[in-house]
Amino acid sequence: MIPNATKEKFEDPQNDSIWILSSTFIIFTMQSGFGLLESGSVTVKNEVNIMMKNAVDVMFGGLTFWMVGYGLGFGDEPGANPFCGWGDFFVHANSSELGWTYSKFFFQSSFATTATTIVSGSMAERTRLDAYIVFSMLNTFIFCIPAHWVWAPGGWLYEMGVIDIAGAGPVHLVGGVTGLVATLMLKPRHGRFTTDKNEQPAMGSPTNAILGMFMLWWGWLGFNCGSTFGISGLKWKLAARSAVTTTLASVAGGIVGTMTSYIFKQRRFDVGYTINGILGSLVGITASCALAKPWEALVIGVCSSLITNGVCELLSKLKIDDPVGCVGTHAASGMFSLLASGFLTEKDELTDAMQLDRIRPGLVYSGDFRQLGIQALAVVSICGWTVVTSVVFLKLIQVTVGLRVSLEEEIIGADIVEHAIGGVFYNKKTRMIESEQAS
Amino acid sequence: MIPNATKEKFEDPQNDSIWILSSTFIIFTMQSGFGLLESGSVTVKNEVNIMMKNAVDVMFGGLTFWMVGYGLGFGDEPGANPFCGWGDFFVHANSSELGWTYSKFFFQSSFATTATTIVSGSMAERTRLDAYIVFSMLNTFIFCIPAHWVWAPGGWLYEMGVIDIAGAGPVHLVGGVTGLVATLMLKPRHGRFTTDKNEQPAMGSPTNAILGMFMLWWGWLGFNCGSTFGISGLKWKLAARSAVTTTLASVAGGIVGTMTSYIFKQRRFDVGYTINGILGSLVGITASCALAKPWEALVIGVCSSLITNGVCELLSKLKIDDPVGCVGTHAASGMFSLLASGFLTEKDELTDAMQLDRIRPGLVYSGDFRQLGIQALAVVSICGWTVVTSVVFLKLIQVTVGLRVSLEEEIIGADIVEHAIGGVFYNKKTRMIESEQAS
Amino acid sequence: MIPNATKEKFEDPQNDSIWILSSTFIIFTMQSGFGLLESGSVTVKNEVNIMMKNAVDVMFGGLTFWMVGYGLGFGDEPGANPFCGWGDFFVHANSSELGWTYSKFFFQSSFATTATTIVSGSMAERTRLDAYIVFSMLNTFIFCIPAHWVWAPGGWLYEMGVIDIAGAGPVHLVGGVTGLVATLMLKPRHGRFTTDKNEQPAMGSPTNAILGMFMLWWGWLGFNCGSTFGISGLKWKLAARSAVTTTLASVAGGIVGTMTSYIFKQRRFDVGYTINGILGSLVGITASCALAKPWEALVIGVCSSLITNGVCELLSKLKIDDPVGCVGTHAASGMFSLLASGFLTEKDELTDAMQLDRIRPGLVYSGDFRQLGIQALAVVSICGWTVVTSVVFLKLIQVTVGLRVSLEEEIIGADIVEHAIGGVFYNKKTRMIESEQAS
Repeated sequence: MIPNATKEKFEDPQNDSIWILSSTFIIFTMQSGFGLLESGSVTVKNEVNIMMKNAVDVMFGGLTFWMVGYGLGFGDEPGANPFCGWGDFFVHANSSELGWTYSKFFFQSSFATTATTIVSGSMAERTRLDAYIVFSMLNTFIFCIPAHWVWAPGGWLYEMGVIDIAGAGPVHLVGGVTGLVATLMLKPRHGRFTTDKNEQPAMGSPTNAILGMFMLWWGWLGFNCGSTFGISGLKWKLAARSAVTTTLASVAGGIVGTMTSYIFKQRRFDVGYTINGILGSLVGITASCALAKPWEALVIGVCSSLITNGVCELLSKLKIDDPVGCVGTHAASGMFSLLASGFLTEKDELTDAMQLDRIRPGLVYSGDFRQLGIQALAVVSICGWTVVTSVVFLKLIQVTVGLRVSLEEEIIGADIVEHAIGGVFYNKKTRMIESEQAS
Repeated sequence: MIPNATKEKFEDPQNDSIWILSSTFIIFTMQSGFGLLESGSVTVKNEVNIMMKNAVDVMFGGLTFWMVGYGLGFGDEPGANPFCGWGDFFVHANSSELGWTYSKFFFQSSFATTATTIVSGSMAERTRLDAYIVFSMLNTFIFCIPAHWVWAPGGWLYEMGVIDIAGAGPVHLVGGVTGLVATLMLKPRHGRFTTDKNEQPAMGSPTNAILGMFMLWWGWLGFNCGSTFGISGLKWKLAARSAVTTTLASVAGGIVGTMTSYIFKQRRFDVGYTINGILGSLVGITASCALAKPWEALVIGVCSSLITNGVCELLSKLKIDDPVGCVGTHAASGMFSLLASGFLTEKDELTDAMQLDRIRPGLVYSGDFRQLGIQALAVVSICGWTVVTSVVFLKLIQVTVGLRVSLEEEIIGADIVEHAIGGVFYNKKTRMIESEQAS
Repeated sequence: MIPNATKEKFEDPQNDSIWILSSTFIIFTMQSGFGLLESGSVTVKNEVNIMMKNAVDVMFGGLTFWMVGYGLGFGDEPGANPFCGWGDFFVHANSSELGWTYSKFFFQSSFATTATTIVSGSMAERTRLDAYIVFSMLNTFIFCIPAHWVWAPGGWLYEMGVIDIAGAGPVHLVGGVTGLVATLMLKPRHGRFTTDKNEQPAMGSPTNAILGMFMLWWGWLGFNCGSTFGISGLKWKLAARSAVTTTLASVAGGIVGTMTSYIFKQRRFDVGYTINGILGSLVGITASCALAKPWEALVIGVCSSLITNGVCELLSKLKIDDPVGCVGTHAASGMFSLLASGFLTEKDELTDAMQLDRIRPGLVYSGDFRQLGIQALAVVSICGWTVVTSVVFLKLIQVTVGLRVSLEEEIIGADIVEHAIGGVFYNKKTRMIESEQAS
């Protein structure tokens, strides 16, 4: 999201609104992507439940974002300050202003719901759905404050000139860190770290997981390119650059992920390594997508892929159970994305077109540590904010609703327990027909 | 669809055509959504068959729409009258006119095929595919006449100033009522209303059903926003408003659907309730998507969700078998959508931009019953038209081709009977490999 | 792809770039479509593997396209000649030129990766993944040379005025012929041509295959309409015409495919016939999508459908094993598409808008054989190029890495062998839970 809200209208409303609305349509398809990736990655007894959680994100998170999230993030009425916005609660505008306000709200709501969806992966297979509903309403609050810092004119990180084009901080770092807090509080799934491989939870449908990855891949193009928040003036060039850097970073990250598995896993091509390599590098390019050069995108992709898969292996060693690799992908690569922008960014005439005149050249090009320092400050402050608020909110839910299902329910699976849906793929009856046909 | 055809060209052809073509691409993805929703909702022995029926809609329905449907709906040559259009049969235009004509035909063909697809759900699991093919060709005719009434300049409801931005009447009400007629003529599926739960047809793949719902959700954004039929002038504001109202209505409807299940079903989160809540509220906002205020969208979403799930339960009580909830979702909420526009709509300077200068303020804002009366007239006349034509057409098919498969074929399932595809998920051979591996 | 590169900039950068970038987003979704179509068509023991191969196309093929493919196809620095382009290797541009260059590179990279993806279908179920990785890197080279001939100003077929709007030659004919070469070198799958039906490899998930077809269908709209490479000037009319011809061709092709099966297969609706009918006709309209009249599109669709299904049956008779029908769909209908343009095309004022001033009217309209001759020359030269290079590359891979997996590995399936993923849908453990629940 490009913070050009100082001038509360579009330069070229028709073109800019086509771009923003179309991009948002695409970004919303990422909910399907996350849903499939997660439901394919968990055991089959929980695959319906995790799809439902991805629907819950949009419904309950969308409501609180409309009520207070947008106002705290982007409201610019008196009372707005460097820490949070104010005004525009229960978003509503008259006919002369609604074009801008509704476009921006619609676009930002897709970001807000994505930040929550990321967390659902790390909470998979052991979280009560009613607890998750409460959480998804509260999570809006965790997202919208850093969104204000980074993207709203007047936000303290925005005023310092932080670089975060498409949400490495407010979306991915926030989502990933919340996921880490959640998985630490929830404890690992039953049987996750037993020595008997057959007892461990297994990937229910790798095909669905890869299909979900594909959907996220194409959706990310809308996410990163749409974050120019318009196409008028020179912004179309920034959109084109975002498309190329996003593609190249994912190409590099995917190759590295695939080859890492080939080398370290006795010539096996591990599906998880490829998925994490691609998604991690997409996160990695998010902060600087409209600014990076092609070779920088490749470098960022390579590093993000190694970081993501490395962190996933590390968590596994530390017996921290993160079912869909949310922490490695979103927290670690989100952090790296912010820092990489402090190393690599160069200014050109296009950066002014996005009102990024506050940014400074990165360490590699200028020898100046200032931009890197600001990026590091963003990492620390966003992590700090996220840890504190997510611990408070999740603890609150834990002592009231309760976070984790009982062991018995976990073993049976959430599809039966929460949705009364017949277990695995099909119910008893269907399996009987099937076995009759087979015999 | 916005009825600005009086002036048979675009204000800003490039921008408007981008908007219309892109929206239509998105609307066509709703065929995948309906396919998955329906194939996930039926028993596994019919899931391939119902996907094929969704392909049939586009193929056979698309052909008759090109031949006569577009002409009867939108032809404006001599002979066009308040009841139906005339001309532009076998759509073809020369190079100076084809921009407008082809854009409009392409856009409308996505609406026409959607109206047919809706019906396939209520005919699932017991309708012969050859009968369905004939039906999908004839259904074009059921759709295109009300489309003329409502959207074509000169259409009698259009001239009275009816409000139906994106097809609550010609698409959803027509589709839903045809579905009701079809299911009444077909009778319930074998075993649907037995007391033994194990004998009842079970949802084959809830994961696919939810994925289908997601696809419909994002597709609906293109459906409702694209119905401004352009982005030039002030239409971009109406598109932005459609995006926000569509999102908010679905958020409210989904929440109500989910909580209804939680409250009335002993804390179970029924997948069907959530799906119907979301889709019903998307239907509910369709008529007034570009006009409603955010809070009105929420109210409409809440009501639509209750109506949809209520009607689905009612049909079940009445032993009317509607496998995918087509009647509750499309007929009941489509009807409500038209009526709600008569209560809630307010005029502003944007309505003129869509050439909606004939509409009057709704009852709530004006105390005037006239707009509500026109909306009610639309409901009654569209229902009447649909009941009569669909009874005639389906009866005709019943006595010639035959509508329903034999009991034996129904028990075996259409995947084997019609497509010679090995039953459930995989054929005997595959299951043997599988069981060898398991042992 | 419209070859207006003579003037290396856009007429209307904002509108044109929206069109190109949005279309490319859509084209990339075709990777999901191919993945699902192929993974649904192969036996379940290879469905994850084939999804991975579709990811490999983008990753490894994308890298070599960035490195050398774009330069050899579209580089216009000194050294470029009628046979190949030169320059723009390791694509990179400064801020004044990057808008055009990056848009074009991004768009073309989606074409390049599609050309490779097509081949993965014909190599399914018996090709080593490491060999396929090497192949997907080399295949860029097979694609980019014909792409230069046909689309780059200065390319020898371009200068002769060949008609190929959206890639019937460089994408489909290249992909299909490479697929034919590959399947001939690989030999049929184990058990493919045994007389015992139960031993033959069976379609793993027809539902997924149809869903994949749907995704390809909508993606093709972006593919063909986006190939106007802009929307400014009169190009929006060509985009609208492409939308209508693409839709109508697929409608006709799908109907013919479905009815062919109904007639010749004892009233069975074979899923493969419908899929091949639709996809074959989409290939058929590709060369002339922006030029054809509606009735011509229908004729092209009918013929392509018959050709595609005919060739698939012929290959089966000849005991050539093409698991997903790649040769019939892409090679045969791609060839037909190029030739049909020589028969049917008429010039109008719109063709000039696409800088197609070199083309001549087709045989049917002019009685002149010249355009047909040029189209035939394109077919012959592209086939020749593809056969020679693909034989060389695949032979090279065969003698170094090895192309085909061992018989034992083939019987076990690539999902276990290459990815250590538990066989069919779920691993032993899950099946045990399942059978416990069933009992």
